[in-house]
Amino acid sequence: MTRQIILKSRPVGIPTLDNFESRSVDIHVVSPGQVRLMAHTMSVDPYLRGRMNDAPSYIPSFQLGEPIVGGGVARIVESKTEGFNVGSYVMGYLPWQEEMVIDTAGLKIVDENLAPLSFYLGILGMPGLTAWFGLTDIGKPQPGETVVISGAAGAVGIVVEQLAKIQGCHVVGIAGSDAKVRYLKDELKFDEVINYKTTSDLEAAIALACPSGVDVYFDNVGGEISDAVIAQINKNARIIICGQISLYNATSQPMGPRIQSVLLKKSALMQGFIVGNYSSRFDEGLKALSQLVGTGKLKYTNTTYHGFERLPEAFIDLFEGKNLGKLIVEL
Amino acid sequence: MTRQIILKSRPVGIPTLDNFESRSVDIHVVSPGQVRLMAHTMSVDPYLRGRMNDAPSYIPSFQLGEPIVGGGVARIVESKTEGFNVGSYVMGYLPWQEEMVIDTAGLKIVDENLAPLSFYLGILGMPGLTAWFGLTDIGKPQPGETVVISGAAGAVGIVVEQLAKIQGCHVVGIAGSDAKVRYLKDELKFDEVINYKTTSDLEAAIALACPSGVDVYFDNVGGEISDAVIAQINKNARIIICGQISLYNATSQPMGPRIQSVLLKKSALMQGFIVGNYSSRFDEGLKALSQLVGTGKLKYTNTTYHGFERLPEAFIDLFEGKNLGKLIVEL
Repeated sequence: MTRQIILKSRPVGIPTLDNFESRSVDIHVVSPGQVRLMAHTMSVDPYLRGRMNDAPSYIPSFQLGEPIVGGGVARIVESKTEGFNVGSYVMGYLPWQEEMVIDTAGLKIVDENLAPLSFYLGILGMPGLTAWFGLTDIGKPQPGETVVISGAAGAVGIVVEQLAKIQGCHVVGIAGSDAKVRYLKDELKFDEVINYKTTSDLEAAIALACPSGVDVYFDNVGGEISDAVIAQINKNARIIICGQISLYNATSQPMGPRIQSVLLKKSALMQGFIVGNYSSRFDEGLKALSQLVGTGKLKYTNTTYHGFERLPEAFIDLFEGKNLGKLIVEL
Repeated sequence: MTRQIILKSRPVGIPTLDNFESRSVDIHVVSPGQVRLMAHTMSVDPYLRGRMNDAPSYIPSFQLGEPIVGGGVARIVESKTEGFNVGSYVMGYLPWQEEMVIDTAGLKIVDENLAPLSFYLGILGMPGLTAWFGLTDIGKPQPGETVVISGAAGAVGIVVEQLAKIQGCHVVGIAGSDAKVRYLKDELKFDEVINYKTTSDLEAAIALACPSGVDVYFDNVGGEISDAVIAQINKNARIIICGQISLYNATSQPMGPRIQSVLLKKSALMQGFIVGNYSSRFDEGLKALSQLVGTGKLKYTNTTYHGFERLPEAFIDLFEGKNLGKLIVEL
């Protein structure tokens, strides 16, 4: 028997602990092509919120009574697949379950000697690749341009920032606590960081932080923060829609200023994307990120919760912005 | 002495005849590098509305007391520039003035034997190039894809439609009168045309007309029409922001549903542009359009007002959608 966490009811608005339930389930016997895993570190990510709705999105909805599935790193404890040796670690999309038997298709061996295991859920995983492809393929920042990042202290934002600095840009972050602002300024060397929760006039603050206007906006949050940034874009600006966490819990259609007129006046581009669009190029992105991590040019940080049972709490805390960098749960 | 039409006061909301004034002015002597022109056909275009505001946009504002400047075709009646012969016609950005002395830089000789002079303000002019570059460079429609065009019966829309049909697309137009719908269906062979003014449920009408969803949306109007289209885009859709005529007369910030979440879910692109961005490629576009016009593959139509003094009225009528195709004023 092992524990798993299922979706008990669909959240309406902000998720609550009641939406989840822990239960005990049997472990299957390992068949050829499968492994038995012990979960080591699980990832909680904002995009999971969309899967909890019963509405079409870019990935299918979770079913009620079924376990949540998210990114995770786990150790192989039994194997019936060549190349997947007991004691090795794998990453992949795993059910929120302490112990599991799972097909190895879709799993990838990771090397705990090359980087901390948590990195494979962060800078060398989905958030890192999201930052890499969103910024380089859509944003295409040029040296001297101004790059603004919302959700700047999040799992993706902190990578985007460092990549933009390496590219020679003026980089401005928007985050939601003084602790985050300090980290971004002191550790990651953002040029300017704005605490949107304590700034009375966000538009004025952005104007002050971006004296040459905004050339690239990497948007993780949406809503009014984005309104304030988009009002100040330059001609030929690129707006990367990576996330809209401020709206994921909306219970009615969010309304805001119509932005098409700004895009028209500025000949600006706005592009939504998910990292899966680039799956054929993941190796290219991972190679670039690994080199930058290996040479110390990219830093990364996690907020770590301990204990399997804290997965729902960790997920809910994402929407209050309690995390600095990637939020992970270690078992 | 000659007549010119000046901006007397800045419109608030929909422009009125009071915003304009006709006055008599002297004609200058022709200096070297200049010509004296008699206006032949003047263009009225929605984008002029933006220049009547005292607010930054992609081109400078008109000054009060100064003549409106727009696209026009005129005949050379006196010349002090080599290559600009008396009797030839030129096109360019001309003041709303019956007779004028003007620098030849920026003027282009046009051949009335190759195409009707009005074509140089339409399909072989700014609207044609706008359609060409917006559709081919941003929309990139593939055979079998569905292309939706708002403002479908306008100067740009009727070109976009025909280009998309040539490309093998399913083409759906949205227009504002039964006469336009008939013209678009019967003459231009749109696959489906929706009269948004008489359709009770626009979203349902678009869904019916686009059974495979919307791959490319060429937007000339913005507002609620666009909301209904954007709600039905496919993955990897391209939205071309060419105009937002429904909002040009807004007196407060137009609000609407936030669209970033849709762009994110659909990995969709939205790009604003003005034709001037492509000025280095105008010859390429004109060559392609001329060939299609010459071989009869592209049709074009105008709504023609007669008389210089009707320029303000013609301009105002644009916002009521009184034109089918390009709205021009012949002197």
